[in-house]
This record gives sequence, structure tokens and C-alpha cells, in this order.
Amino acid sequence: MIGMMLENVRKNRPLIHNITNFVTANDCANILLACGASPIMADDPDEVAEITSICDGLTLNIGTLNRQVIASMLIAGRRANELRHPVVLDPVGAGASRLRTDAAARLLEAVKFTAIRGNFSELKALASGSGTTRGVDADLADGITEQTLDEAVAFARAFAKKTGAIVAITGALDIVADSNRAFCISNGHPMMSSVTGTGCQLSAMTAAFAAANPAHPLEAAVSAVSVMGCAGELAHARLTEADGNATYRNYIIDAVYNMTPHTLEKGANYEVR
Amino acid sequence: MIGMMLENVRKNRPLIHNITNFVTANDCANILLACGASPIMADDPDEVAEITSICDGLTLNIGTLNRQVIASMLIAGRRANELRHPVVLDPVGAGASRLRTDAAARLLEAVKFTAIRGNFSELKALASGSGTTRGVDADLADGITEQTLDEAVAFARAFAKKTGAIVAITGALDIVADSNRAFCISNGHPMMSSVTGTGCQLSAMTAAFAAANPAHPLEAAVSAVSVMGCAGELAHARLTEADGNATYRNYIIDAVYNMTPHTLEKGANYEVR
Amino acid sequence: MIGMMLENVRKNRPLIHNITNFVTANDCANILLACGASPIMADDPDEVAEITSICDGLTLNIGTLNRQVIASMLIAGRRANELRHPVVLDPVGAGASRLRTDAAARLLEAVKFTAIRGNFSELKALASGSGTTRGVDADLADGITEQTLDEAVAFARAFAKKTGAIVAITGALDIVADSNRAFCISNGHPMMSSVTGTGCQLSAMTAAFAAANPAHPLEAAVSAVSVMGCAGELAHARLTEADGNATYRNYIIDAVYNMTPHTLEKGANYEVR
Repeated sequence: MIGMMLENVRKNRPLIHNITNFVTANDCANILLACGASPIMADDPDEVAEITSICDGLTLNIGTLNRQVIASMLIAGRRANELRHPVVLDPVGAGASRLRTDAAARLLEAVKFTAIRGNFSELKALASGSGTTRGVDADLADGITEQTLDEAVAFARAFAKKTGAIVAITGALDIVADSNRAFCISNGHPMMSSVTGTGCQLSAMTAAFAAANPAHPLEAAVSAVSVMGCAGELAHARLTEADGNATYRNYIIDAVYNMTPHTLEKGANYEVR
Repeated sequence: MIGMMLENVRKNRPLIHNITNFVTANDCANILLACGASPIMADDPDEVAEITSICDGLTLNIGTLNRQVIASMLIAGRRANELRHPVVLDPVGAGASRLRTDAAARLLEAVKFTAIRGNFSELKALASGSGTTRGVDADLADGITEQTLDEAVAFARAFAKKTGAIVAITGALDIVADSNRAFCISNGHPMMSSVTGTGCQLSAMTAAFAAANPAHPLEAAVSAVSVMGCAGELAHARLTEADGNATYRNYIIDAVYNMTPHTLEKGANYEVR
Repeated sequence: MIGMMLENVRKNRPLIHNITNFVTANDCANILLACGASPIMADDPDEVAEITSICDGLTLNIGTLNRQVIASMLIAGRRANELRHPVVLDPVGAGASRLRTDAAARLLEAVKFTAIRGNFSELKALASGSGTTRGVDADLADGITEQTLDEAVAFARAFAKKTGAIVAITGALDIVADSNRAFCISNGHPMMSSVTGTGCQLSAMTAAFAAANPAHPLEAAVSAVSVMGCAGELAHARLTEADGNATYRNYIIDAVYNMTPHTLEKGANYEVR
């Protein structure tokens, strides 16, 4: 199933509108191209409704926020909802500042999201309206481990129920859930946390997978998360001793580019809870 | 001739002012360094006239547009005209939104461009004041093929005549024309469309080549387009099975860095129409 | 000593708030991760005080300046001072425009900096309030060579005395000084000037090293400069004939990722003046 989701991205070549941060925008564009989609970045309030209209999906990523961009996100999100385009929220750093927590909450109120992807800290901050997020990486205490898995699954399902969105919590273990089912995915490699923007890239891909598989948002998100995790493993296997996080960054995108439905089906490691 | 154009970039090391999008700015800076030029990015209305004044050429790229940046582009473009610096327009996504189409048209009215580079959709939108551009990549229907070559050549010449600029239409085939002559260039590799920003990078290089070869704007643009195409071929030849678009992105810039006038002359594949 | 400084970054994993330009932000984030720190980029006036508060250090880089960002830098810088967090200034392009020279001067007046890093042109412009900086790279006439070393050392010490900051002048030779001591560092490779943003990356790392070694700001800065220089050498040694500045960019970050205290101690080449 998840292999077919990838195949559909390659076949339908969805155009994804990204309102996103300037730190990882280039990587998001290249990973969208790698998985078979096409990127467009546009964040001026005067054009986002039009740009969203010619696209197939929308990612809202609050990584480098400002007031104007929040306005653009609201406009584009509402327009995408009218057009029934999938919309993905990446609440980068929610909980780290009032501006981010409030902006994420406001987006959640105004826009119906197909999927919400973040680390556990960010999603808990988003769900509660406050938080203690330290930076843009998950608090160590918040990383999902075997021990906290049950709590995280329960949280994901409840938040999915409340928002109507697929909830993807990513970390050492990943959880992708709707209100009924939760997939626990254990692909990836710890070194991925040494590469900036793997989360942003995954959110952009999630929009592409949702756009190419409109009838299967949960499986589409599971497929995108699995693609990223398998790419992290395959890329890591290529590294030589002198390689570090910069080469790893490139190899992850390369691995997405070369990922076949077959490799994905074989490599993906998940269970349904 | 086109080899000498590259040699002059290496010799004169022109400093290029780029008012450009945040998605591909880093790649534009690195490819300018790769070809022998130097980059500076500055887009605040309060400093662009001064920055342009200390530079040798200017690129205006509307990839991630906003009102303030449009104002900066008008100021910098006019100042560059006063100083007789070459100015290159990259109308990214013209036709995809009213904001982009109008901004590009306004720039075209207010600034005299040395060269305009875009895909066929963007340039047609720019010429007609409206368009159906789908995203930042050329519509499939708009890609220049052997079949549409004559139409594209005629369009390029007419648009060059109207604007007084060198017109560079890039795609599977590239056309670089002034009102009299058109060069049809068939270098490059289809996989270049999997790398974000190769067009932006080419536009930045075109400004560098024009700045280093002030008496030969047409040949300078042909040289820049050929450098990019040959780099795409050389970079592709280096790829291994596990490499994808991220490694390709790096190898293209690497190939520009290592391009010699001799390699360029030998590899460039064009005819005059 | 400088090996221990690196070890402390790896141990303390400082979170660094970067208000920086959009051209090299991704590289700054990845090199912070490479050296063992964590990055967060945030530049809206509404959140920078809060973001700085959860961080351990702050970098202010004026590479792509605008009025709003200057306001954010003043807010964040003052807050960091209150919290006694280290703050690093990178006056990119000071001397190239009135906006940059004035913004840098205003920051210098309002914020107490732990360290200031730039090329000789930029720092002289900053010290004198005017300048002739040509672009963001050091003027050839301003590069520190054996001939101008004494002048540069005297300048660095005097500017350190005036500002109370560690002054790091980087170029072919690097000088890192407080008012008493000056370290002259001769690591690195000329090809580093073909990679955009190596200076920005070094400034970000300097904040990380200062944050992880609060009692030793001078040695921390020497260590950061040495890490960058040694990484430039190690990365260059890996290059094959077909590699250019893009691969070099990645290998530099890779080399920082793999740098051990032992490699650093062995490779660092400096003398105290």
C-alpha cells in the first residue's frame, strides 16, 4: 500500500505550495522534486490565494515566522480548504515563543488540516496552547521511546480526533495516527537529528503524498514518513568515515530520489496499534 | 568566442548584486563564485542603490516576491541603468499570479534590461501581460522541442526587439536571441529539472558574463547558457547509481567551478538561426 | 586547551539563536549541528526576546539586513546581555552601504558583544564608521598577509580594548585578540573564499564555543577559528579533480562534524603575539 502511495506521487506529480521558513526552503524544494512532486514557494499576502489555487497541496511551516507570513498562511489555508486541497501544518518551535504557539493555534482554528507533523514537544504545546519547547528539536524528555510510546499513541489519537487531521509525531520512533488507528514506525537513523530541516522536508513531502492520494490521507502520511525513514537508513549506509552531516543531508535527498515502491515496501518497518 | 567570455569572467571577477528569492540564494552565490564572479545579496530599499553602485552587474529574480522587494528592484534597476551596469531579469513564475506578472511587467517598463531569462511559459506571460504558468517549471506544453522551435525563435527575436534585451528561453532546448540572431543551444540534461534553482543560477551567471563582456551581451549570454548546459552534462556523467538530485546539484556547481574555456568550446553545442 | 573548548561544545550542546541572513542560514544551522551545538533561527521582533531567553548564545549577522531585522537584533542583543549570554556580531558588508555601517555601529553601541568577527575591511569600516568595503569579501588590499600582520594585530587589540569584545579578523591569516593577547592563526585554505558563507558559519560557531566555555571567551574564539581552518584543510585534502566549491562546502561541514579535540590540537597552527 505505501509503495503505491509513492508511485502515485511519481505519476501525478503534484505541485505543492510551501509557505515555509528561509532556513530549509531549498532542501524542501529539492526533496519535493526527489519524491516526484514540484515545489513552489510564495508567501506574500497579495499572491498566496492565487498560487494555492494553481497547486495541488499546501504546506504551512512556521519555522521563521513574522506577522505578514501569518496573514499569508491564513489566506492560503482558507483558500486551500475551499478548493479541498490537502493542507499540512508544521508547527516548528511551537511552545518556544508566544508568537509561535499562538500562530499555530490560530492556524489550527481557522484552517482544516489534512495532517499535522511535528516533534512531541511541539505537538503537545500546540494541543495545550503553551509549552516548554527548547528550540526546534524535540526535548530529550519528549523523545518518543518504547517507554513513552503508549502515552504518545494516546495523545496522537486524541489530537487527531480533536482536529480531524492525521497527526504525525516524529522522533526516534514515529507515530502517525487518525482517531482510530495509529502506525508506529521505527525507520530512520539517530544521525538524522544532525541534519537541519529533515522535519520540514518530511512535512513538505507529506503534503505531496496527501495530494497524490486524496482518498487515503492516513496511508499517504505513513508512506511519506516511511520514505523519509528509509532514506535516512539508506543514506547512512553510504557514508564513509570522512563524511558528516552535510554529505548525509545530500544523501538523504538522493535516497528519496532513488526510492522505488519496492525498496520502500521492503524497508518500511511499522506496526499498527 | 564563448570560451573567451568565460575567461573574461575569471579575469575581471565581476561583483554581482542579486535581489533574489530566499529558496535558491545560496546556490546562486556559490555558482557565481564557481564561474569566477563574486555575489552580494541585498534587498532593502534603503541600501540597494548603494550596493548596486559598488557592483558590476545586477540580477532581479522575482522568485519569492513581496511589495518591499519590488520597490527595491525598481530602485536598484534604475540605478544600474544610470551606471550602465548590465541588468538581468528572471521573471520566475510570471503568469502564475497577478503579483508576479504585474511586477515583472512593471520592471520591464521601468528598467532597461541587458538580458531576460526564463522558461517559455514565463516569457510568454511576461510578453502578453497574462498567462497560465503552472508553478515555476515550464508547462509541458510550453517546453521547446524541435516542433515548437521555429515559433520560439520567432517569439524570442520579437521580444528581444521589443525590449532591447537579449532574450534567453531555457528548457530542453535553449534559445538565446537578440532581434537579429538566435542561437539554439542543445546542451544540458533532462535531470536538471529535478534540481531546484538551475534557472535562477543561470540568470545570476548571465549577469556575471554580461558584466565581464560589456561589448558582447549576446555572446556573453550564449556563453553563460552553454556553461550551465555543459556543466549539467559533465555533472551527470559523474553520478553513480545511488546519487540523486542533491548530489547532482552539487556536481553542477562543481562542474562550473572546473569549466575551462577549452572544455566549454569543445562541449558547447549550438547553431545560429 | 582549544581541544577542550570543542569538547565542551559537544558536552554542553548549547542552543544558539541566530538572527542572520537568508543566503547562508542553512549552512549556519548545519555547521552548528556539526560542531555539537543546536541552531534556532528567529527574527521577528515579537519573538526574539523569548527565543533568546531559551537559548545559550546569540549571533547577530547583518548579511541581508532590513529595518525590521535591525529592531529584532537590538531587542535580542539587549535581552542576551541581561541574561549574560554570549553575543557575537558578524558585520557582513559593513562599509558597503550606509545602512550596514550604521546598523553595525548602532548594534555596537547598544549591545555588549562577546566577540566580533569579520574580514579586515568590515572591521575597519565598523571601527571608523565609514569604509570602502567592496562586497562581502575582503578587499584584496585588506587581506592580512605577513606584511600587514603587525598593523592588523595592533588594530585588533585596540578595537578589542574599545569594545570589550574578542576581535576576530579572518582572511588568509586570522587574528583573534583581546586587548592583551593576539593569536595569529594560519590554518585554512585559499579555496575557502570560493565557498559562500564560511565567515557566517564561523561566526555562528564562535557563539557556540563562547556559550560552552563562558570563562574563556578568547580561547573559545581561537578554538572556533581553528576548527574552521583545520576543517578547510581536511576538506580540501578530500577533493578529487572533478570536485569544486559545492562539494568543498559540504566537506568543510563534514570535517567539523568529524573533528576531534585531538585532530584539532594536532592541526591548529597559531602563535601568540
